[in-house]
Amino acid sequence: MTTRLDRLRARLEELRVDGVLVTDPVDVRYLTGFRGEDATLVVAPDAALLCTDSRFWEQVHEEVSGAELSKVTSEPLLVHSAREAARVLGSGARLGYQGAQLSHASYRRLRSRYDGPLRDVGQAVTRQRAVKDESEIAVMRRAAAVTDEALGLVVGRGLVGRRERDVAWDLRAEYHRLGAEGEAFPAIVAAGDHGAQAHALPGERVIRAGDLVVIDTGARVDGYCSDITRTYAAGEPSEELRHIYDTVLRAQLGGLEAVRAGAHGRSDVDAAARAVIEAAGYGDRFGHGTGHGVGLEVHEAPALGRVRGDRLEAGMVCTVEPGVYVEGLVGVRIEDTVLVTPAGCERLTRLPKDLEVVE
Amino acid sequence: MTTRLDRLRARLEELRVDGVLVTDPVDVRYLTGFRGEDATLVVAPDAALLCTDSRFWEQVHEEVSGAELSKVTSEPLLVHSAREAARVLGSGARLGYQGAQLSHASYRRLRSRYDGPLRDVGQAVTRQRAVKDESEIAVMRRAAAVTDEALGLVVGRGLVGRRERDVAWDLRAEYHRLGAEGEAFPAIVAAGDHGAQAHALPGERVIRAGDLVVIDTGARVDGYCSDITRTYAAGEPSEELRHIYDTVLRAQLGGLEAVRAGAHGRSDVDAAARAVIEAAGYGDRFGHGTGHGVGLEVHEAPALGRVRGDRLEAGMVCTVEPGVYVEGLVGVRIEDTVLVTPAGCERLTRLPKDLEVVE
Repeated sequence: MTTRLDRLRARLEELRVDGVLVTDPVDVRYLTGFRGEDATLVVAPDAALLCTDSRFWEQVHEEVSGAELSKVTSEPLLVHSAREAARVLGSGARLGYQGAQLSHASYRRLRSRYDGPLRDVGQAVTRQRAVKDESEIAVMRRAAAVTDEALGLVVGRGLVGRRERDVAWDLRAEYHRLGAEGEAFPAIVAAGDHGAQAHALPGERVIRAGDLVVIDTGARVDGYCSDITRTYAAGEPSEELRHIYDTVLRAQLGGLEAVRAGAHGRSDVDAAARAVIEAAGYGDRFGHGTGHGVGLEVHEAPALGRVRGDRLEAGMVCTVEPGVYVEGLVGVRIEDTVLVTPAGCERLTRLPKDLEVVE
Repeated sequence: MTTRLDRLRARLEELRVDGVLVTDPVDVRYLTGFRGEDATLVVAPDAALLCTDSRFWEQVHEEVSGAELSKVTSEPLLVHSAREAARVLGSGARLGYQGAQLSHASYRRLRSRYDGPLRDVGQAVTRQRAVKDESEIAVMRRAAAVTDEALGLVVGRGLVGRRERDVAWDLRAEYHRLGAEGEAFPAIVAAGDHGAQAHALPGERVIRAGDLVVIDTGARVDGYCSDITRTYAAGEPSEELRHIYDTVLRAQLGGLEAVRAGAHGRSDVDAAARAVIEAAGYGDRFGHGTGHGVGLEVHEAPALGRVRGDRLEAGMVCTVEPGVYVEGLVGVRIEDTVLVTPAGCERLTRLPKDLEVVE
């Protein structure tokens, strides 16, 4: 079996390094299974060495089998790791580091302690995570199913008269009851003009009849995230709100239609969704990208934005989530998490999307 | 009134910069009140400019009054911020950056776009947060009171026969019921030999009679954290466990006794707690530092460790939390969050510490 570590090792030559110092904790988990914070991983052609301290010493033995373990005692983790990298790779070896994850101060510490060339391997490891294997897809199906079930139950209890923060709490409680680890991210529950803030924090506001309510939430199962947004009508909405909702829904369906292996996140998927919103005259009311990858992190590669986008591959998992935000009036966003397939995509989140009127 | 921004401005000369680009989101919140992610703050002697994008545009207007606002559109935040810093500070001005918070890749982007000297201001802003003002202390008292109340209630319902993860969930539910924003960090609930992992994740394990149970938790109120650990006896403990508990309690009381303005986190507080544990023969079973600052982050300055420590000042809030961890047997940790005063300290978390036997 080709392990995740093997796949990274196979890229060392292309990355023009002799080994990589992995410092992003999510990447360390992905490559080794270790779930603690404060660890580094030295990946060499014929070895892998996980460095962590006494707080995690028992845990690391339980969770990690494919790497040797190196205990950090009194010196800083980066100093210890630099010495271990030199020992494992040999003097003067070219060491890759993660420039987007490593702080500049840590980089300077590494630079002063490591006696060989350093090279930024960019998002190499993080991007390896973008294409999911079968075991990851199975877990992400479960995360999406839990998310659907919880959101359906919570909204089924009604929205009018409830505080945003109580609806958000109710989602957390359902995730717990359904056996999830917790939330993938703090839920957004935003009613009426509060929904015009794309990243609104749920607050004391009481949902009123006539509000549209944006709910953006996801469960985390075995470390993997799900991400869904639905916009509900609390009571009968105005014609204007219905029109905005229909626009966003057509944009989301257009974006989904464009997803397939080989499509581009920017020029295909984002462009398809954005074209619908622009044609309806709301182009300047859609200020974020159309989607993002989902996995161990709720935002990861690939990008599907108007500025940055990546070519999609089969096995990637990403969101499609256009929105329209009108200050002082309303926000509407509709989002699914989908699996990219050779011919299109498979929705992992499967709740219906016709405008649901909930009292 | 001297604002937080003014206090930072008063230090520009000492830091040998003409302005600072603040990139740590917690520092941005501390200085301006803005609670969103993805913002930077340019602090100049006579201006402050907060840069963020459309997702946060309404929110930033609601939350921020002491800074001008600058909207990021299609370019990366760091590129936009570099240009705005040059505009506000003038060509060639010395710009401070946060080397410990800024990624090396972002540093390079800033370096390539900013046409003047850059200087790492280290933890200057973060350290300003260490000494709390009256409004912060008031909020932290509330966070500690909520934490005490929730932990007391949850343990009062009994421990034997419950899963660790259900006890952890029960704490979250109480925090919500009591009006807190949520948890300051994911609670640790670790029974029996699981407690020997200082950072154990609560799991499916059922608490048994005879177990010691480590519970490390804290509520977050208005952004501010609290942090407490108590170790409970689920049923009557053995003599050996009682002896370890008494050792840790004496160490914690010794550490608290050493806290006062002017004391040193390493050579006074950590040393006092560690001396008790070493004298009892458990020196090599106490693998972490004695404490850390608490505020908008659950771990922040000052440090009270065996490797790193800071001089304490009145108004700082920190923890004192020695522990003993015996693999295969038990973990014991006892922790309070305290306010440093001129003559000593005031406990913010106030639950009793004599070994409590809970069925």
